[in-house]
Amino acid sequence: MYTQSVQALIDELGKLPGIGPKSAQRVAFHLLKIDQTEALRLAEAITAARMNSTWCRTCFNISDTESCEICIDPKRDQSMICVVEEPKDIVAIEKTREYDGLYHVLQGSLNPIDGVGPDQIRVKELVTRLSNESIKEVILCTNPNLEGEATAMYISRLLSATGISVTRIASGLPVGGDLEYADELTLGRALEGRRPI
Amino acid sequence: MYTQSVQALIDELGKLPGIGPKSAQRVAFHLLKIDQTEALRLAEAITAARMNSTWCRTCFNISDTESCEICIDPKRDQSMICVVEEPKDIVAIEKTREYDGLYHVLQGSLNPIDGVGPDQIRVKELVTRLSNESIKEVILCTNPNLEGEATAMYISRLLSATGISVTRIASGLPVGGDLEYADELTLGRALEGRRPI
Repeated sequence: MYTQSVQALIDELGKLPGIGPKSAQRVAFHLLKIDQTEALRLAEAITAARMNSTWCRTCFNISDTESCEICIDPKRDQSMICVVEEPKDIVAIEKTREYDGLYHVLQGSLNPIDGVGPDQIRVKELVTRLSNESIKEVILCTNPNLEGEATAMYISRLLSATGISVTRIASGLPVGGDLEYADELTLGRALEGRRPI
Repeated sequence: MYTQSVQALIDELGKLPGIGPKSAQRVAFHLLKIDQTEALRLAEAITAARMNSTWCRTCFNISDTESCEICIDPKRDQSMICVVEEPKDIVAIEKTREYDGLYHVLQGSLNPIDGVGPDQIRVKELVTRLSNESIKEVILCTNPNLEGEATAMYISRLLSATGISVTRIASGLPVGGDLEYADELTLGRALEGRRPI
């Protein structure tokens, strides 16, 4: 019904998370209607982001260099690692200004139903870091939902023999919620009130 | 907080209709996480759709040629024009298989609050077509909302002197719907538009 290139665009847009067939159609027509330079700017932004971005080889945050800005910053507290699921969680935590240590991005959480086990997330890399760096505290900041709790529990058990203090971000976050949707104050409080597990 | 290229991607995604800041972030990270070829396919689809698509010079539908497939199809009834707001409306009407005439896409509807007057939509081009082609009937298929009704009213007045039969798509109860759940306006229209059986 549509021309081939328009249908291809609708199909590709429909693969994005949270965009159904009707939204894909709406977005496609929006892209066809706006200025050509505007539309191509999105295409270029996708290409540039993919071409320039890599994972920090230390903490697995998104970075445009081999090591991310946080990892190479000498002012950050080198004795603490905050373990998060996704790079966007780092952004949320940085906004609270309550934390100045390092991070470790798991790039996921344990989810046996979806086939995500410890080997599918960056747990091994965390353990390697802990044996090389002089870390005193690991704060588990995975989401306060089923998968995040399971991941925190798994890591805390894994590290129990290391002598490193392992803490969990405090409640104050609504259980079943998502870290990225928490307001800064709540997230700050939760960090402040962390307790050993 | 994000690298420049990631922030640029989030910004561009956030400009799309129906995509707020959080969704833009989610889509951006999705694009960074999936296979590179998958992500670049979206960028290429946007570029291809923009580069290959143009507006049909007759009906202003989306087309990859100067005249769209419907306009050049000799089997279509050349005496009827169905006036719609957007190209996607053509797709919806074609799916019914109830219409085999021509189309005219206004590329919008009258909306004085947003500064959209008759000069901002393809009304002039419709009038030009009607003076050149031998059209017997114009069916106004703009949306049955405030803007669509105003647009239909405007065009019907504009064409009243031409002698061309101008009709409006029927408003009424949706097929498969329930009388008790219909809003008063729709039910009123359905009664008003009653026809002998």
